[in-house]
Amino acid sequence: MSIYTYISQNNTNPRLTLVGAGPGDPELLTIKGLRAIGSADVIMYDALASEEILEYAKPGVKMIYVGKRLGTYVYKQEEINQLIVEQAFLYGHVVRLKGGDPFVFGRGFEEIEYTRSFGIPCEVVSGVTSSIGVPASIGIPVTSRGFADSFWVLTGTTKAGEVSADLQLAARSNATIVVLMGMSKLAEICELFTLSGKSEIPMAIIQNGTRKNARTVLSTVSEMPEKAKAHQITNPAVIVIGEVVGLHPEFVEAYCDHIGIEST
Amino acid sequence: MSIYTYISQNNTNPRLTLVGAGPGDPELLTIKGLRAIGSADVIMYDALASEEILEYAKPGVKMIYVGKRLGTYVYKQEEINQLIVEQAFLYGHVVRLKGGDPFVFGRGFEEIEYTRSFGIPCEVVSGVTSSIGVPASIGIPVTSRGFADSFWVLTGTTKAGEVSADLQLAARSNATIVVLMGMSKLAEICELFTLSGKSEIPMAIIQNGTRKNARTVLSTVSEMPEKAKAHQITNPAVIVIGEVVGLHPEFVEAYCDHIGIEST
Ligand SMILES: C[S@@+](CC[C@H](N)C(=O)[O-])C[C@H]1O[C@@H](n2cnc3c(N)ncnc32)[C@H](O)[C@@H]1O
Ligand SMILES: C[S@@+](CC[C@H](N)C(=O)[O-])C[C@H]1O[C@@H](n2cnc3c(N)ncnc32)[C@H](O)[C@@H]1O
Repeated sequence: MSIYTYISQNNTNPRLTLVGAGPGDPELLTIKGLRAIGSADVIMYDALASEEILEYAKPGVKMIYVGKRLGTYVYKQEEINQLIVEQAFLYGHVVRLKGGDPFVFGRGFEEIEYTRSFGIPCEVVSGVTSSIGVPASIGIPVTSRGFADSFWVLTGTTKAGEVSADLQLAARSNATIVVLMGMSKLAEICELFTLSGKSEIPMAIIQNGTRKNARTVLSTVSEMPEKAKAHQITNPAVIVIGEVVGLHPEFVEAYCDHIGIEST
Repeated sequence: MSIYTYISQNNTNPRLTLVGAGPGDPELLTIKGLRAIGSADVIMYDALASEEILEYAKPGVKMIYVGKRLGTYVYKQEEINQLIVEQAFLYGHVVRLKGGDPFVFGRGFEEIEYTRSFGIPCEVVSGVTSSIGVPASIGIPVTSRGFADSFWVLTGTTKAGEVSADLQLAARSNATIVVLMGMSKLAEICELFTLSGKSEIPMAIIQNGTRKNARTVLSTVSEMPEKAKAHQITNPAVIVIGEVVGLHPEFVEAYCDHIGIEST
């Protein structure tokens, strides 16, 4: 059945709310996000939105998993866009739940743009982004007087699959550098910083931040690729590079080998 | 009475929770923040934390305003730090409520560091930062495929009162640039971007974002200083520079003269 059929059958009040679920801890959802979920007719969610958040929904609400997970169908972005529109016309209020903040590497804008082109009203509920909330969960502030007066959030992999050109500029700045989706480029990232004379800058990788299975590795830029491998730190992970990482209470002592900090 | 007197009289269970209140809309508080406020014995808040949020507190909770406001005492950071410790020893659970996220230009880390030095347990509850949530509230994503694959959040004024050195680098990057506390340096900021050949890049200034009195000016870098003056846009405001601003639904039409978008 095509989208246009739904339009003509429209008896519902189609609308879309893009909700940022926060980095993992279900209590980091906003009150506004909670309300949107509570009034949803359909919830579309992916791997990074904590499943506990789904319990805030009305009973019987249709839940559609559109993330990547072994053994499930992998949706293309275009298919997700279409599904939002279809579900909104069929059932009314679609809540699209996204990890962190919907506008931080979430492709949220694309979903809104597509949905809006069908005349469907769209709203965004911002969330706590992992780029700030995950470092904070282990005590690292992205800014702190005298240590960093700016922070720059980048993606490790660009659309073209290469290391972002801005990472070179980032390596030369005084900003705290936060890299999302960077684990597959870890060696290249550390190399870039080393080439800018920053091999001894403190660095942290936090996997599954704010979740029960959170794990952290603290090191310097030069030693990080090896440590990360030794500790088998993988996605989803936030990479933080900068002097603020040295503020971590246990950085000095545990420096080379820190692992297993629980989320607070 | 000195702090040391409080320590020796200690019958309470002193602790500190730093809570990010979000950019203004009280529903952008997290569930975790709400819970912390609900269990507070003392709440210390400043101008950017929405007063409606204080209504989530238990009745009779001690509220201390430590922000800047005409006719009130202006606390120095050191005094705020000391007050936190004193109040925790006297009354127990102190909630320090901060606009946006506590670790984004909030001096939150300094408060924690000082408080922890007295053996008082501290926790941070991340919040929706104005740097992401305020642009989102008018439909501008800080990242969007093909428009910006990173965003850089800077302060307009550094500790020394000068334009941040990193702003020069920022003007040369492809990142979406978000400047907080930048209104007093607006002309210099626009100048920097113009010198990097970016005079025609779209730019937005949003004052009181996500609040009922939200106001927006959209323009290009070159025309912004004049427009902002004409519209008397002042603090607190978020400045956004980058191609993503051009995604604003009304950018093209209203471009030169857009003002008065309500928060959603
Ligand atoms: C597609 S991006 C989405 C980011 C999200 N919109 C945000 O604001 O946090 C996914 C990446 O976010 C990061 N991430 C999200 N949640 C995380 C968590 N709890 N712990 C560590 N990294 C996380 C990882 O880098 C992951 O690869
Ligand atoms: C001391 S900084 C604190 C930032 C805060 N911790 C955050 O994460 O949003 C204060 C600055 O934040 C920005 N700001 C905070 N709330 C805002 C709002 N609702 N609208 C516009 N700007 C805001 C302004 O640039 C203001 O000068």
